[in-house]
Order: sequence, then C-alpha cells, then structure tokens
Amino acid sequence: MITLADIHAAQTRLEGVIVRTPLIPLHNNTPDRQLFFKPENLQIGGAFKLRGAYNKISSLSEAQKKQGIIAFSSGNHAQGVAYAAKKMGIKATIVMPAIAPEIKVANTKAMGAEVLLLQEGGVEEWRMAAEDLAAKHNYVMIPPFNDETIIAGQATVGMEIVQELPDVGVVLVPIGGGGLISGISAALKLSGKNTKIIGVEPEIANDAQQSFRKGSIQKLPISQTRQTMADGMRATQIGDITFAHIQAFVDDIITVSEEEIKEAMRLMVLKNRLITEPSGAVTTASFLFRSDILPKHALTVAVISGGNIAPDMLAELLR
Amino acid sequence: MITLADIHAAQTRLEGVIVRTPLIPLHNNTPDRQLFFKPENLQIGGAFKLRGAYNKISSLSEAQKKQGIIAFSSGNHAQGVAYAAKKMGIKATIVMPAIAPEIKVANTKAMGAEVLLLQEGGVEEWRMAAEDLAAKHNYVMIPPFNDETIIAGQATVGMEIVQELPDVGVVLVPIGGGGLISGISAALKLSGKNTKIIGVEPEIANDAQQSFRKGSIQKLPISQTRQTMADGMRATQIGDITFAHIQAFVDDIITVSEEEIKEAMRLMVLKNRLITEPSGAVTTASFLFRSDILPKHALTVAVISGGNIAPDMLAELLR
Repeated sequence: MITLADIHAAQTRLEGVIVRTPLIPLHNNTPDRQLFFKPENLQIGGAFKLRGAYNKISSLSEAQKKQGIIAFSSGNHAQGVAYAAKKMGIKATIVMPAIAPEIKVANTKAMGAEVLLLQEGGVEEWRMAAEDLAAKHNYVMIPPFNDETIIAGQATVGMEIVQELPDVGVVLVPIGGGGLISGISAALKLSGKNTKIIGVEPEIANDAQQSFRKGSIQKLPISQTRQTMADGMRATQIGDITFAHIQAFVDDIITVSEEEIKEAMRLMVLKNRLITEPSGAVTTASFLFRSDILPKHALTVAVISGGNIAPDMLAELLR
Repeated sequence: MITLADIHAAQTRLEGVIVRTPLIPLHNNTPDRQLFFKPENLQIGGAFKLRGAYNKISSLSEAQKKQGIIAFSSGNHAQGVAYAAKKMGIKATIVMPAIAPEIKVANTKAMGAEVLLLQEGGVEEWRMAAEDLAAKHNYVMIPPFNDETIIAGQATVGMEIVQELPDVGVVLVPIGGGGLISGISAALKLSGKNTKIIGVEPEIANDAQQSFRKGSIQKLPISQTRQTMADGMRATQIGDITFAHIQAFVDDIITVSEEEIKEAMRLMVLKNRLITEPSGAVTTASFLFRSDILPKHALTVAVISGGNIAPDMLAELLR
C-alpha cells in the first residue's frame, strides 16, 4: 500500500514535468449541485498516465535506465511511457494490441518509442508478450497500473484536488485497471478527508464493481469488455495491488451505459470545450444520469482520465 | 495607466471566481523552440473576458450594483459580464450586433442577461446604443476594453504567466480592442521582466498594427474588418487608454492570414485537444508561420483568448 510520503515524493518528481490541471466548473452549475472537471485530457500525452509513468521511470537506477524499458498498453499508458522515456533519453519499447485506437498508436510512435502491435488476446497476453521481450533484451518493465510507484504517481491527481478544493465532498473516478482510483482515493483518505470516492465503469465492463461487491477479483471475458466504446476500460480485470487500495479507500463503484457516455462527451465538448475520450467521460455521465444514487449538496469532482479520441468520432458528436 | 497594485487587487478579487488556467506545452515541442498555451478558452464563459468584467463589476458601489449594468459586445465580453452579474445577483442588459456568432448570443442569454440585438453598425454604433439605454434606465456601463479596471482584470493573465514561467521570453497576445494585451504587457513589464510582448492580428483587421506603426489610433472600415473569421477582432479601432498601454509596454505587432488561423485551429484541436475560436488561434498561427520574425531560443507563450466556436465550424476543421 502506498503512503502519504510516496505521494509527496511523486509530487516533487513531477513538478515542472506534468501540467497541473485546473478544476473547471460545469457550464451550468447551480449553487446546490456543483460539478468540477479535473481535465487530465489536457495532460501531456492526453491522459493522466504520464504521472505514473514518469514517477516510475525516474525512480529507476542509472543501470536500469541504460537497459531500456518496456510496457504493454492499449494506448494512454503507452504514450505516457514514451514521453517520459524520451524526456529522460531512455530507449522504450511498447507492446500494443491491434485493437488500440490508431491515434494512440500513432502518437506513441511519434514520441519515439518502438511499437509492437499484437493481433489477438487480452491484457494477460499483452503482459506475457512484453515479459518475454523484457527477459530476452533485459528491458525493465513499466507496468500500466498494478505497481505502487505507478499508483503514487497517479495519486498526485488526488493531491491537486485536495489542495485546490479542500471541501470536496465527492470525487468520481474512471476505473480501467484501477491505478488512477487507487492513487486518488489513497491521496484523499490518507490526507484525512471524508470525501466519498466513487469509481465509475461502463455497464458492460464492470469487473471492478463486481470485484468490489464480491470481495475478490472478478474477471470478465475480453469478448465482452471489448464491446464498450471506452477503449481505456477494456482491461478484463484489476490487479491485486490496485484491488487492495480500492478495498481500503473507495466508497462505491457505479456504472453508466454506452449511450450515457456518448451524451456526456457531447455535452462536454459543446458546452465546456473539453474533448474527452469515452473512458474519460464516464464520470460526467454518472453525475448527469445517476444523481439519484450520488450524495446530494456536495462539491463534486469528475476526473476526466483522457482525451485521445479519433477525429471522426469527435466530428460525429458535433452533428 | 494601471499599476502593479491595481493588478494585485484584481488577482485578489478574482481568486476562487475564475479558473487559473495552466500553461500547456505544444504537443511536439523541441528543446530549442518551446511554445506553451495559456488556454483562456477553458475559462468560465469560454474566454478571458470574465476577468475584466468581474473585476469591474465587483468594484462598483452597492448603489451602482442596484441600478443594474449594461454592456455592448460582439460576444465574449457579453458572456463575461452576464456571468459576473449573475454571480453577484445584478441585473444585466447586453447590446450585441446581429453578426455576433449565435453560440455567443445563446450563451449570454443562458446566463440570464437581457440581450438586445442590433442589425447594423460597428463598435461605435453599439456603444452609442448602449449609452442611450444606460442614460434612460440609469444603468452602469461596463466597457469592453477601454477602461483601467477592465484592463487590470485582464492583466491577471499576465501575472499567472510570470508566476508559472518566470523565464518566459516572448508572450504572443491577440489584439481586438486591446484590453488583453494592455493588461498582460503591463503585468510583465511592471514586474520588471524583459519579456517581449508581441501583439497578433489578422492581416485584414490590423488596425492596432497600423496605429502602433504610425503612433496614432487608426480606424479601419467595418466592411473590411468584418471579413476576418476572427469575430472577436472586428473592432474597427482600439481605445485611447488601451493604445497608451500598448505604446508603453508592447514590443511589436504582427499579423497572420485567414488560412494560417484556420491551420492553427486545426492543429490545436487535433494535436493538443484545445478548442479555440479564430481570434484565439492567431497567436499559435504566428508561432507556426512567423518564426522568421520571432525571437529565437525563447520560451514562448501563446495566449488563447477564447474558444467559443460554432459546432459546425469545429466539425469542418476535423475533416
């Protein structure tokens, strides 16, 4: 489990590297129900992932940095790792599934990483392929979420929220592999806040919700999870380290439908000029369409995890 | 002329009201040529205008606040005034030209202001119509740019830039009526910085450039300035107060073409997930296409003045 000291160390490492994203109010906030976006879609690489990746890679020994690094990712972690590695002059190899959005593959390559596209499989297969390569070439593995140093990096999102809005009542966080919510919930709860931390998933990729309810990690078939438009949330299961943080610090996990995700994306782009990818929009969708089960009269923050969306999908939203 | 004390007072008034926008790096920055966006398109109301409007309105006496306020604007000032007035519970009337983008008119109404649409004329006619109404109803006029308290509010953009990037070498600022560049240039120069402050205008609405070169305020025909896609820059002349600040604190004024503005908008939305209106994109256009006349090897900031763009124009950019 990460500590407050780990999070503070991460904040120090990330200062001057990441964008300290502001809190932006929803366009039509009313005094009795206020939402603020934490727009990590505006982060370098278009997602929060740089925080964890940079924290991890900058913590490596000089010998490890010389060996080079490797990662597996459906997209945003790839870009975070590629950017961090380039910034530190480290060779990076990224294993990505062929189903990853083109824009994420292209951006990762543009940042100078070597990309290996895998045609089939789920997160387990990508991880194994990356581990094989790591063993063969002596690369250091940079895991996407199930790692304390990665989680401490993502936790800086939570520290920034506490520092800017100390009276925050609810934080809504997307859950893919669980790294972001592990970090944010730890940051809030270890800071002594009573803030409710609520995870949000697509209905058809609700493995974290099922795990949370049953008290043990549940796995969903990739044939099911790949059907969600939220490509960052197709991981079929969360990790043991992230699950431990979720059990310790998260208050509830709720779900939203595909249509609700799309509607939230549309509203954010048209009314708040925020371009989000589907995974990044689940939290706003829950604020808009799950008000019956969310705490009332609370200052609420919706974390937008990323904004890497294909131009044609964005154009469709504008119609 | 505004003072550093005026700017500090404005910063205090605006704390907790406005979004402190971050500096966001251009997606493909290289170490020898770095650009950072100051994205006021993400400000409440979609533009920097709330800063000046709120600073002005909160400086009114209680008696003045009760009288109600009036403003004339082609769009973004209207939204800033409407939001600030609503927040303080003050009645607001806004005179807008019928050529103002629909989205800006709609947003101003949505914020609770009474909107009066004028079919013809330029900034002078709008001002006179607003002044007639002000005299008739005893409303307090909130001018769009030619006012020291408005300028001090816009200057907070400059203070935030200095505070976040003390080594900033160049700041590129759009010029409409001149309020934003007056404030930003005053903030930088009064803080003792040698930062170059460079104004940017569309080629076909370069009245500030002509005024700067000739040393006296030059006016352009509205039939010419209304041809630029940059609807926030169709003011046919700058004010005497803004011109005095520009003469005192601005280093140069340059221009960009309509095609270059469009290309900059496209790049910002596709590569940096930033939705800008044409007026907001002139600075990035100058960085991209006027590198020959800009200082080399300098940390450069491009101020994005606003992001209120019609959905169909945005969709066209994505094609």
